[in-house]
Amino acid sequence: MANSRSGDSVTERLVRVLETFDTDRTVQTATEIGRRARLPSSTAHRIVADLVDCGLLERDEEQRVRLGMRLWELAMRGSHALRLRQAALPFMERVQAHIREHTQLAVLENDETLFVERLSHPHAGANITRVAGRLPLHASSAGLVLLAYGTEELQERVLAGPLEAVSPETVTDPSRLRRILAGIRRDGAVVSPGTVETVSTGIAVPVREGRGQVIAALSAVLPYEASAPPAVEELRVAASGISAALGTHRP
Amino acid sequence: MANSRSGDSVTERLVRVLETFDTDRTVQTATEIGRRARLPSSTAHRIVADLVDCGLLERDEEQRVRLGMRLWELAMRGSHALRLRQAALPFMERVQAHIREHTQLAVLENDETLFVERLSHPHAGANITRVAGRLPLHASSAGLVLLAYGTEELQERVLAGPLEAVSPETVTDPSRLRRILAGIRRDGAVVSPGTVETVSTGIAVPVREGRGQVIAALSAVLPYEASAPPAVEELRVAASGISAALGTHRP
Repeated sequence: MANSRSGDSVTERLVRVLETFDTDRTVQTATEIGRRARLPSSTAHRIVADLVDCGLLERDEEQRVRLGMRLWELAMRGSHALRLRQAALPFMERVQAHIREHTQLAVLENDETLFVERLSHPHAGANITRVAGRLPLHASSAGLVLLAYGTEELQERVLAGPLEAVSPETVTDPSRLRRILAGIRRDGAVVSPGTVETVSTGIAVPVREGRGQVIAALSAVLPYEASAPPAVEELRVAASGISAALGTHRP
Repeated sequence: MANSRSGDSVTERLVRVLETFDTDRTVQTATEIGRRARLPSSTAHRIVADLVDCGLLERDEEQRVRLGMRLWELAMRGSHALRLRQAALPFMERVQAHIREHTQLAVLENDETLFVERLSHPHAGANITRVAGRLPLHASSAGLVLLAYGTEELQERVLAGPLEAVSPETVTDPSRLRRILAGIRRDGAVVSPGTVETVSTGIAVPVREGRGQVIAALSAVLPYEASAPPAVEELRVAASGISAALGTHRP
């Protein structure tokens, strides 16, 4: 077990290679990957060749590589994210049919908000969140819900800062945030106008599993001036439906 | 580079560990993983510990492990599958709103049909396909479309068999399949009653990118006796929309 804890295991270097890919950088050369992953070029080329052999990366005609379908398949097949989004999708679609803007599902991952699904109307307003994208917990409505129902340790760690302002209206004052979190636990919902983008309002509710534990946040992004209460109600009904669906399929 | 081609690289063992997870087996012990991945127990425990350290696996209270959200995030962020399904989802929703059964998106992966998205009505009929699940190319309507527009080498390899019968109505005769493939290239669509399940009809059309290359198949699964032509038309309109959307977002 000893060497598995080392800071530079093969697995870790492999993760560093995979981390160099993102939504804005889907195709790279092995040399670029090495530079971005801070790995010697020969090491980067060897890991990339290994990953291509296993299908986790795919090479194009110009010898550049991108993430392979096989990686996506492996990550999805047995994944909690897939189970959650499959349970949530029909309910998200129902919300989306009413609000016709953005409907999103997020989970807590490593002290941040990780968005696992997003439905967007073609003519919907501004929204910077992306599937598999992250935002700080204190900034978005979904993150505030996850934080409000998170452990006390998590809350203290996040409130201790730094609390970045994603937009000019992001609440970054710890005592104001504490009041917001208490309000979420009281109301079971949050309405956050302008905290991610000044032109939009985020609205989020908790999604519970089995024993009542909050496992996700369901949120809507509406234009700033939109009326929130109908969306809160839509989201609440959908969140109950998701909880019930999660309870039915493999408990 | 030499050792990267060896049959037993660390990367390959790591993939073998990840491969032991699937939709029906989302939580396992390191010992079970070792047995299923045909790895010595100590090796399996070390790889699992490494993967937990990197967040690619997560451990629960009972020391069992499951795929981590981090793996999902890494696989999704820069992935072709994500780009494709994000472009396709609004159009799939429109098809689904009309047909109210199953609407699916599939790609060719390693000589098989890999389903990257599926929308299903809560009261829809039978459908064995799953997101991140596979089916033989000759069996499903989506697979037949991918095969029809695949390379000649692919077609010969698949038609050379073995051609498994997924249902009693799966077409497994190579010359009948050749006629079906020619029909798909002529009509730009296929209707396959009963080939995956005797109670359903699969209908599929090609999804093209940029230069006209077929990169995916869009399919609907309807009850066996449903009328196919309206669904074919819905799928065609949606497939054009997806092509246009793929052309607009980062070409």
